[in-house]
Amino acid sequence: MKDSLLVLSGGVDSTVMLYKYASKIAMAVNFNYGSNHNKRENDCAALSCKRLGIPMIRIDLDFIAKYFDSSLLDGADAIPEGEYDDENMRSTVVPFRNGIMLAVAAGIAETHKLKTLMLANHSGDHAIYPDCRPGFIDAMSRAIAEGTYDGITIDAPFTNLSKTDIVRIGAEIGVDFANTYSCYRGGVRHCGRCGTCRERREAFRDAGVTDPTHYEND
Amino acid sequence: MKDSLLVLSGGVDSTVMLYKYASKIAMAVNFNYGSNHNKRENDCAALSCKRLGIPMIRIDLDFIAKYFDSSLLDGADAIPEGEYDDENMRSTVVPFRNGIMLAVAAGIAETHKLKTLMLANHSGDHAIYPDCRPGFIDAMSRAIAEGTYDGITIDAPFTNLSKTDIVRIGAEIGVDFANTYSCYRGGVRHCGRCGTCRERREAFRDAGVTDPTHYEND
Repeated sequence: MKDSLLVLSGGVDSTVMLYKYASKIAMAVNFNYGSNHNKRENDCAALSCKRLGIPMIRIDLDFIAKYFDSSLLDGADAIPEGEYDDENMRSTVVPFRNGIMLAVAAGIAETHKLKTLMLANHSGDHAIYPDCRPGFIDAMSRAIAEGTYDGITIDAPFTNLSKTDIVRIGAEIGVDFANTYSCYRGGVRHCGRCGTCRERREAFRDAGVTDPTHYEND
Repeated sequence: MKDSLLVLSGGVDSTVMLYKYASKIAMAVNFNYGSNHNKRENDCAALSCKRLGIPMIRIDLDFIAKYFDSSLLDGADAIPEGEYDDENMRSTVVPFRNGIMLAVAAGIAETHKLKTLMLANHSGDHAIYPDCRPGFIDAMSRAIAEGTYDGITIDAPFTNLSKTDIVRIGAEIGVDFANTYSCYRGGVRHCGRCGTCRERREAFRDAGVTDPTHYEND
C-alpha cells in the first residue's frame, strides 16, 4: 500500500530509499534551506521523483538561513575539510534539522492521509548528528504518533546500516548514482575533500561499486 | 536564569505565560502561517514583547497555507460557530502545528544556547488538538532532548490548567488582556461567536475577571 511520505534530500541515502521503497512511497517532500549544496541536491531529488512517477513537494525553510547558525549555510569556503565523523564537521550541523523536517512532514502526511514518514538516516551519521540517532528517531516517532489524529509513525530502515551498505543496496536495484549530490561545498562538481565527499568516495570504494562522480580533486 | 524560549502567539494563554515567566524568558518566537487571525495575534505578541523588553523573532511558515488543509487558513466564512471543544472545531486544526513550532523553536534555542522551550497549551485544548495533550508534550520533550546537543526540553506549566485558571493568573499579575487576540474569524473586532471567541468570553466570565474585549455580537 502506498501510504508513506519520504523525506528526500537528493543525496545518496534518501535516493536509494526512494528507489528501494518506491512501491510504498505515495509522495516525497524535499526541503530547501538555502545553501548551494541544498539546491543541487534538490534538483537531483526532483529528477529522481519524475523518473519514478512519485509526486514531490518542495518546502522552503527560509527561516533557517536567516536565524540558524551553520557553516553549511555560509558558502563553500566555510566548509571544513576532514573526515565525515570528525568533530570539525560539527560546524556544518543545522540545529535540529531532522526534527524540523519530520515535524513538517507529519503535517503534510496528516493532510494527505498518509500513515508513515520515511527518513534515510544511517549509522555513519550518529557520531556528529544527534537527530540521526536511533534514540531520537524512536522518541520523535512517539511524539508524532501522539500529536496526530491518525497516529503517524516514522520508519527509518537504514538507521543501523552504513553508507557502504546503502551504496551496495542501491547498486543492486539500479539506482542512478550520477543523479545524486553530496558535496557540502555546493560546486557544480563534487570537491572531493569535504567530509561528505570523503564519506561518499569511501562508501563506493568499500562497497566495491563504481563511483560515477567526477571529483575536483582526484 | 534567562534560558527559556517561549512560543508566543499573542493570544491570552501565551501572553499570560510571557508575563508570568518574564524573568526566565530570554526570547520569544512568534509564527506566521498566513491567516488574518494569525496576523492580529502577531501584532499583539510584538507589542507585549516590546513592553516587557523581551526580544522576539517572527518566523514565516508560508508552506502551511500552501500545503496544509485547515479552515483556519480559508478566511472568516470558513470558521464554524459553536463551542471550542465541539467536533466541528476540528476543521480549524492545522495538522501538527505545535510539533512544527516546537521543532523550529528547538533549532532556534540551540543556536542561542537556550535550555528550555515554553509552550502555553492548556487542558481546554486537549479535546480537539492531539498536539496539545500531556502525552504529546512529554514525548516531544524527549524527542527534542535526544535530538539536540544540549538536551533541550519543553516546559508547559499550563498543561493541566483551564483557560479560566489562566485568565485568573493573568489578572493577578496585571496582564493587559486588551492586547491579546483570539477570534479565528480574524476581524478587527472579535466576532464573539466562533469557538475561540466563546471560549475567551467564558473564561473571563468564569474567572470573574472583567473582559475588555469589544465583541461584534454582545
